Amino acid sequence: MNRFRSEIGEEPATAARLLERSRPAVAAAARSIRARRPAGLVIAARGSSDHAGLYGKYLFEIRNRVSVALAAPSALTHYGSGPRLERHCVIGISQSGSSPDVVAVVADARRQGALTVALTNDPASELARQAQHVIPLEAGQELSVPASKTFLATLLALALLSQELDPDPELEAGLGRLPGALEAALELEPRIQDLAAGLGTEHLVVLGRGYQLATAGELALKLLETCYLPAQAYSTADFRHGPIAVADPGLTAILLQSAGPFQADNAQLATELAGLGAQVAVLADGAPTEGAVAFDSGLPEALTPLPMGLAAHLLACHLAVRLGLDPDRPRTLRKITQTW
Amino acid sequence: MNRFRSEIGEEPATAARLLERSRPAVAAAARSIRARRPAGLVIAARGSSDHAGLYGKYLFEIRNRVSVALAAPSALTHYGSGPRLERHCVIGISQSGSSPDVVAVVADARRQGALTVALTNDPASELARQAQHVIPLEAGQELSVPASKTFLATLLALALLSQELDPDPELEAGLGRLPGALEAALELEPRIQDLAAGLGTEHLVVLGRGYQLATAGELALKLLETCYLPAQAYSTADFRHGPIAVADPGLTAILLQSAGPFQADNAQLATELAGLGAQVAVLADGAPTEGAVAFDSGLPEALTPLPMGLAAHLLACHLAVRLGLDPDRPRTLRKITQTW
Repeated sequence: MNRFRSEIGEEPATAARLLERSRPAVAAAARSIRARRPAGLVIAARGSSDHAGLYGKYLFEIRNRVSVALAAPSALTHYGSGPRLERHCVIGISQSGSSPDVVAVVADARRQGALTVALTNDPASELARQAQHVIPLEAGQELSVPASKTFLATLLALALLSQELDPDPELEAGLGRLPGALEAALELEPRIQDLAAGLGTEHLVVLGRGYQLATAGELALKLLETCYLPAQAYSTADFRHGPIAVADPGLTAILLQSAGPFQADNAQLATELAGLGAQVAVLADGAPTEGAVAFDSGLPEALTPLPMGLAAHLLACHLAVRLGLDPDRPRTLRKITQTW
Repeated sequence: MNRFRSEIGEEPATAARLLERSRPAVAAAARSIRARRPAGLVIAARGSSDHAGLYGKYLFEIRNRVSVALAAPSALTHYGSGPRLERHCVIGISQSGSSPDVVAVVADARRQGALTVALTNDPASELARQAQHVIPLEAGQELSVPASKTFLATLLALALLSQELDPDPELEAGLGRLPGALEAALELEPRIQDLAAGLGTEHLVVLGRGYQLATAGELALKLLETCYLPAQAYSTADFRHGPIAVADPGLTAILLQSAGPFQADNAQLATELAGLGAQVAVLADGAPTEGAVAFDSGLPEALTPLPMGLAAHLLACHLAVRLGLDPDRPRTLRKITQTW
């Protein structure tokens, strides 16, 4: 078994550990945020963590009704003039805690008087040192270059923070069921393997909307990293605004959907794409869909990106194996990317 | 001549007209924004307008030091619970003024007490009706489905607003030179035609960073719409965080660069990609680069996305023609996309 696959297998235990250990750190960060009533949140991240940040945007905007901006670090790091953030809370996400541009955004925000929070797998890292609050991801060492369990842990830390800010019994119950739901998602493996076996690779897009836009981005990135396939993620709304023009029999569209407000629209888009000759593959959670790898995590929609992310990791892993590639060590990449 | 090409040819006159006519509307919006001191800006847009919004994010964060969030309309339109925006200014961008989700975000923000501004080519549209301030794009009728002169006009309207908020003599002088710089960009056509003739089409990415990230997104979308090529845009920093794994002799990377803080990093990335066997094509403004379509708009960097956008439109147009396609009427698309 490759390391990527074995670390995907650790996602349920990672969730259980984070649920058990992180509540005090999350509660402390939430107390500071409540006391400040920030005008908005800013999330600074790169790569997989940036997809986690996009999940955070939907989560905090929908559940906590706070506006979220995803940071453009170069305004600060290269143009020397980032936005004024003294009324904001800035969340830096970096699995290694050593991404220089994420560290720079958090350090500058703190100098300006912003409230700062770090989500990192290394509580001794520079990012952790710069932020007022640190939420450790508790994922243990991750050896495969493509992130899996640290991605899951980042989503969960964000969900815990959102829940602590605006507690909801249904979400709390969902958090309790999460490790089990992730175990159940692992059992999708044979069906996902079948899906990978039949997937066209000429031209791939990954589609999602709302809470599943972040997992669509994550799957597309994983297909790039592990399969060297130029997959592209779109919100289904943005896809209709132009990129749908590429739909033809060479296109394979992977549609990620959960029970939620987009089911009817997704179904219509799937029909449209099939009508244009494209292959449509669906991963559907709680939304019974013909011809899909359909499952039911039983989670509130806000948590469905976590098992969907696991399913996406499995799909990328099995497609890489089918293509004869080693997902652990993508050519060109290193585990820690020092962008500035 | 196809309509797309003829409307690209109208970009210089569109800029001149907007510069002449829009100052009073821009000044009125800027007065309201200054009076409010918003905690942040939110930009709501789709498609090409969303790339213009990304330009606005860099512009307002770097020049005006105000944090900018790009709206995720579905939080409001589908989850029924968008962020609280009473301390924000919300800018809705829609060429037709009839994009239902953009209209919904602006209308809801206004109900909440936010300051609202519409950028639209139709001052009688629903978007214009909902916003307190309207900045008409003055682009005249656009018949080609892919936007060109309305995209240019949107960038310029944002630049005028940024300038009105924080006037700078150098930018003002650049605005005065803009129509001439766009005329000069049109004269790049034979060289861009040559570039299009030699461009690989197996796997395309478009790279840019900072101010050129928006034009990279715009070019990738245009290649999708007019050439049916699954091109993908990346910030050079994000590209290094994973997607660079796809670099091989089948990859063609189009790199957009202007004189600015990324020249050295871009040059290094170009060398790296060439070393991996990829084809690297560069459009370089004011940054003399070997083997590039290099020009010098003479504009401050904040305005370079405008001639670069024009050059990008020409490149998409000529590549479509080379591929025997009609860029005016991409299959599947209509001029107005009604996403909700």
